[in-house]
Amino acid sequence: MATPRVEVGVLGATGPVGQQFIARLASHPWFRLAWVGASLRSEGKRLSEIGWQLAQPLPDEVRDFVVQLPTPGRAPRIVFSALDAAVAATLEPAFAAAGHIVISNASSHRMDPLVPLLVPEINADHLGLVPAQQRQRGWTGAIVTNPNCSTVFLAMALGALRDFGPRSVLVTTLQAISGAGYPGVASLDIVGNVIPRISGEEEKVESETKKILGAANGETITPHPMTISATTTRVPVIDGHTELVSVAFDRTAALDDLRQAIESFSGRPQELRLPSAPVHPIVYLDQPDRPQPRLDVGRGDGMTVSVGRLRRCAVLDAKFVVLGHNTVRGAAGAALLNAELMLAEHLAD
Amino acid sequence: MATPRVEVGVLGATGPVGQQFIARLASHPWFRLAWVGASLRSEGKRLSEIGWQLAQPLPDEVRDFVVQLPTPGRAPRIVFSALDAAVAATLEPAFAAAGHIVISNASSHRMDPLVPLLVPEINADHLGLVPAQQRQRGWTGAIVTNPNCSTVFLAMALGALRDFGPRSVLVTTLQAISGAGYPGVASLDIVGNVIPRISGEEEKVESETKKILGAANGETITPHPMTISATTTRVPVIDGHTELVSVAFDRTAALDDLRQAIESFSGRPQELRLPSAPVHPIVYLDQPDRPQPRLDVGRGDGMTVSVGRLRRCAVLDAKFVVLGHNTVRGAAGAALLNAELMLAEHLAD
Amino acid sequence: MATPRVEVGVLGATGPVGQQFIARLASHPWFRLAWVGASLRSEGKRLSEIGWQLAQPLPDEVRDFVVQLPTPGRAPRIVFSALDAAVAATLEPAFAAAGHIVISNASSHRMDPLVPLLVPEINADHLGLVPAQQRQRGWTGAIVTNPNCSTVFLAMALGALRDFGPRSVLVTTLQAISGAGYPGVASLDIVGNVIPRISGEEEKVESETKKILGAANGETITPHPMTISATTTRVPVIDGHTELVSVAFDRTAALDDLRQAIESFSGRPQELRLPSAPVHPIVYLDQPDRPQPRLDVGRGDGMTVSVGRLRRCAVLDAKFVVLGHNTVRGAAGAALLNAELMLAEHLAD
Amino acid sequence: MATPRVEVGVLGATGPVGQQFIARLASHPWFRLAWVGASLRSEGKRLSEIGWQLAQPLPDEVRDFVVQLPTPGRAPRIVFSALDAAVAATLEPAFAAAGHIVISNASSHRMDPLVPLLVPEINADHLGLVPAQQRQRGWTGAIVTNPNCSTVFLAMALGALRDFGPRSVLVTTLQAISGAGYPGVASLDIVGNVIPRISGEEEKVESETKKILGAANGETITPHPMTISATTTRVPVIDGHTELVSVAFDRTAALDDLRQAIESFSGRPQELRLPSAPVHPIVYLDQPDRPQPRLDVGRGDGMTVSVGRLRRCAVLDAKFVVLGHNTVRGAAGAALLNAELMLAEHLAD
Repeated sequence: MATPRVEVGVLGATGPVGQQFIARLASHPWFRLAWVGASLRSEGKRLSEIGWQLAQPLPDEVRDFVVQLPTPGRAPRIVFSALDAAVAATLEPAFAAAGHIVISNASSHRMDPLVPLLVPEINADHLGLVPAQQRQRGWTGAIVTNPNCSTVFLAMALGALRDFGPRSVLVTTLQAISGAGYPGVASLDIVGNVIPRISGEEEKVESETKKILGAANGETITPHPMTISATTTRVPVIDGHTELVSVAFDRTAALDDLRQAIESFSGRPQELRLPSAPVHPIVYLDQPDRPQPRLDVGRGDGMTVSVGRLRRCAVLDAKFVVLGHNTVRGAAGAALLNAELMLAEHLAD
Repeated sequence: MATPRVEVGVLGATGPVGQQFIARLASHPWFRLAWVGASLRSEGKRLSEIGWQLAQPLPDEVRDFVVQLPTPGRAPRIVFSALDAAVAATLEPAFAAAGHIVISNASSHRMDPLVPLLVPEINADHLGLVPAQQRQRGWTGAIVTNPNCSTVFLAMALGALRDFGPRSVLVTTLQAISGAGYPGVASLDIVGNVIPRISGEEEKVESETKKILGAANGETITPHPMTISATTTRVPVIDGHTELVSVAFDRTAALDDLRQAIESFSGRPQELRLPSAPVHPIVYLDQPDRPQPRLDVGRGDGMTVSVGRLRRCAVLDAKFVVLGHNTVRGAAGAALLNAELMLAEHLAD
Repeated sequence: MATPRVEVGVLGATGPVGQQFIARLASHPWFRLAWVGASLRSEGKRLSEIGWQLAQPLPDEVRDFVVQLPTPGRAPRIVFSALDAAVAATLEPAFAAAGHIVISNASSHRMDPLVPLLVPEINADHLGLVPAQQRQRGWTGAIVTNPNCSTVFLAMALGALRDFGPRSVLVTTLQAISGAGYPGVASLDIVGNVIPRISGEEEKVESETKKILGAANGETITPHPMTISATTTRVPVIDGHTELVSVAFDRTAALDDLRQAIESFSGRPQELRLPSAPVHPIVYLDQPDRPQPRLDVGRGDGMTVSVGRLRRCAVLDAKFVVLGHNTVRGAAGAALLNAELMLAEHLAD
Repeated sequence: MATPRVEVGVLGATGPVGQQFIARLASHPWFRLAWVGASLRSEGKRLSEIGWQLAQPLPDEVRDFVVQLPTPGRAPRIVFSALDAAVAATLEPAFAAAGHIVISNASSHRMDPLVPLLVPEINADHLGLVPAQQRQRGWTGAIVTNPNCSTVFLAMALGALRDFGPRSVLVTTLQAISGAGYPGVASLDIVGNVIPRISGEEEKVESETKKILGAANGETITPHPMTISATTTRVPVIDGHTELVSVAFDRTAALDDLRQAIESFSGRPQELRLPSAPVHPIVYLDQPDRPQPRLDVGRGDGMTVSVGRLRRCAVLDAKFVVLGHNTVRGAAGAALLNAELMLAEHLAD
């Protein structure tokens, strides 16, 4: 791919997802971090002065980057957005209007009919919305989004099983605390405990999944007609959302066929050999008590989703366990993959 | 109730459930611990010399009790069994044959067609099996069982909703480590982790629940015809199983009616004012993020089940969260309530 | 003691320590909660409307209490203070000036030379400061304080060993998250982790302990001359601070003599049989791996401190482990014991 | 270094430290795993059939290795030993007698006066014991050991400060559960809890540290004369031992000088640029609440020790916090570094 590397920026650079962007961009073969923006509170500070929360260290070459105010037009063409939803609601359109390609992890515009909600292995063709978005909004830039961290793992498993016609889906999630940002969940609420609800999360899983698996018809996406019922909970795990899924299918689905579909699942990122694309988007684990966050969350550098325990469901047709890395495939890694796809498809030129 | 207190024994007294029996019997108004039995390994030791695992201290009055070999006929008429399933399989019938009323927490005989599997609020009438059991087996004693710790909370919630005709049930459990005994789960497997399977547990939940809610016809129990699909997982919680439940009903079930049924649920233990019976077998919690193990597991001295988050399910009809104390209502407390019921119904005279 | 019960109030009633006061006052034989005060943010709300954080439920009889603004003179004579230090700094003197006996858990006035810093088993005679405080400050009320939650357990152990002349003390604490209030420690910082510093805590342990063990000379307290070096850390435990202590003594101290002193330790609260006083302020545990938070924190209803592992120290003289309940003996329970002592000594009439 | 890679074996290959050896050897530039041995129970199984416990996957190229019985003489010249102490006591000498260089993580022979207890940055010269060992024992092979996982981090910090003459050391350790092997610590004992004792550990820390820092005089090691008092505890952390250390020195030690010594610490592995040697054996962290297991345990691929919070101690002279990776620098990584050192020094030819 192109030498020299393309300059990119990060909006909302000081939060945990912003820091993930910074860490993952440090060694990226296509992109070079050239600009970091955040709110007034951090403006003017060096990255070495913000509270770095990740286990991997702040890359040396960006320690002295000074945090800028997020002014549209004064950042690289491609910006990754780790903004809070409330801020993203107004700031991301302003950046898109000013000509920026906004690769966003925020929830604000995911359900906008003109904004692609991408899982590149499943719906790379939803990028067809971008020209319509630009024309209808009068933008020279664009907004492209990745799903909620608990949506993406379910969507990938269902994407692999799309040919069987998933009709009804019941999913219970056991979500890691890193999904709640920082400071996020109070320790008194979660050490040795379970919180049986994550506010707003169930609605996101239900609606986003249907859009992701929806059919692209020119300039609109028709949501997939399946019915989804989600229950989302928080458990004392650092990284890794575990999801217990039951599915009824329109077509006969032998367990062997389902498994075969999961193991052979692949998509546009694998065809294009995108830098962040894992060889296998999903791995199936045979051990009866897997996947587990501690042992499996890091597969494929956090970009591979693990599935196990595929078996008959007495009520629906089949049930299985899905696990994915919520801050990688569920956030910063997903956005990077989206950006790579756009670059490869010449949509970010 | 009767003064003086009835003498009872505990089989398998040295394990965690056995210790729960000892602790809860210390201040029991009807029963007095008079005998403790365990395997050769502990025989001859004083209770003060076994490794006491509970936060509540070993009661002073039993510190010097000497652990006996479990010889049928040489123990009080009523014995509580905390034996491992493999041992219970042969030892409990031997005790029953020798005239003991065996109130068992073991799984070995739960699905025996002649053995009541009791949740006294739901199926006190299943005690009608006892005379048949004695006649057909030629026993002067009897075996009566309580359910698996993950079954009982689901069964109670479904028992409260029995009139609506539960037809299909999907349940995902997040189970505490104390349910696995001691040493039980290795810490490396569960600190900051989730284990997405508990061996043999899903089958127990599915079959036991149908028996508990089954109809007593003279000397047989017809299992309830509903379909149950269970997924059971282990989470890093000390005490308290959280269960996420979705149910389809045969009859129309408005959420208000379901809630009313849960809140007004009551049974024979409440009528008889049994000592271990909570005033309300189930409480409904209005807060949107409850029940939680840390805050709710101790309700009703561990005998009350908590329900919350009752809402529509897009796939089945309704969904909700259930929580109960696995070593109390799910084990020793359940067995005590069974024994109280039998005493009150003059089945242990 | 006196019927009818003495009316009391709670300042800072909505936080975790305030809630502990409310819970523990519900069944108190001497005191009756009659007033709750908190900041503007909660003013006018019923207690049933604040977010109740404790496992024990909000007592029914106070559910409808309306939170008042903390106006000096418009509360009962005795008020318990769970205020934040910054607020307590000015509000507690205002209450004392208006005639209230302020029994404070806040740190603001603990080191004030005229304010008693009480551990009633050790320094009940420090109450002699109260008349001086009233005279010099012109107050008709008074301020009396209890120590920091990590100080009190060390102070009690050293108090028991006072006759041996503790000269040098090295202590490392492993502190529970409930000691940090709510929301307190972020879960990402402590799940599966250790934080090797608690800001400001080491200084408190070092200075408060010396004042507590100090000699009362009329109207002044001479701090104990021992040298203390504290290292304070946070660990993922809900309740219970564990402290690893090494001590050098001025006088020869055989391990048997030290143990005898610990086991026979008793003080004014035990003489007066104060309602919150445990029979044994300290218990010594023989098992080699005790005390442990999970098993021992609840001893004496949380008012008993546990000590174990007394053995020779190769560098100083002796070392041992101390454990106490940080929100009971380390906060609300300590303040209640202080109030009981004052009432019994006719200092709160 | 040498092409082709030197063949090595692993004794005790199925346990957690054995698995660490297998994982770390997979990509080692000097060594190639050629043989795995374990007890009868695993003999004949393929590595893919043993229960793999690590987050990093079993390397593909060794999946089909068949576990052999540990027969001296039928393994490569260099064998890494992850045997249990009881087995190592007799088996390691048998391997050494049969000509194997046994690089052992077991405790059995660490305190043997003829066996080097190596931390290569500190006492590479202790390898001078090897010829004496061979001569006196009549071995053509040898045994070389690395310290206990809680010893090595303390030893490295004291090694860096050796010139100041450490005289008295008080250390409290907060040790991770991975240090106890598998299944190791029961989850009920450690979730939300602290165990204030690790059996036998304090003695190891005290004696091993003095040997490591001891002076080599020809064929004997004179232990360092300092006095050490250790308290070792277990906390719910997966990987990473945190140690709180206080030291008195013979020579005046300004904090700046101590820090300078820590930061400039380096040794023979760095001179020789051994493959497992971190550029900096110790890093000093300026942030006031560091090092922390979650954030710092992986530094230098687990081979770097982190130090922080260097400050005055009121009782001794200085105190600080040390953190290291217990299964890497504290076990398998330490043994690999030892083997690299021996190869580079031509002691394993």
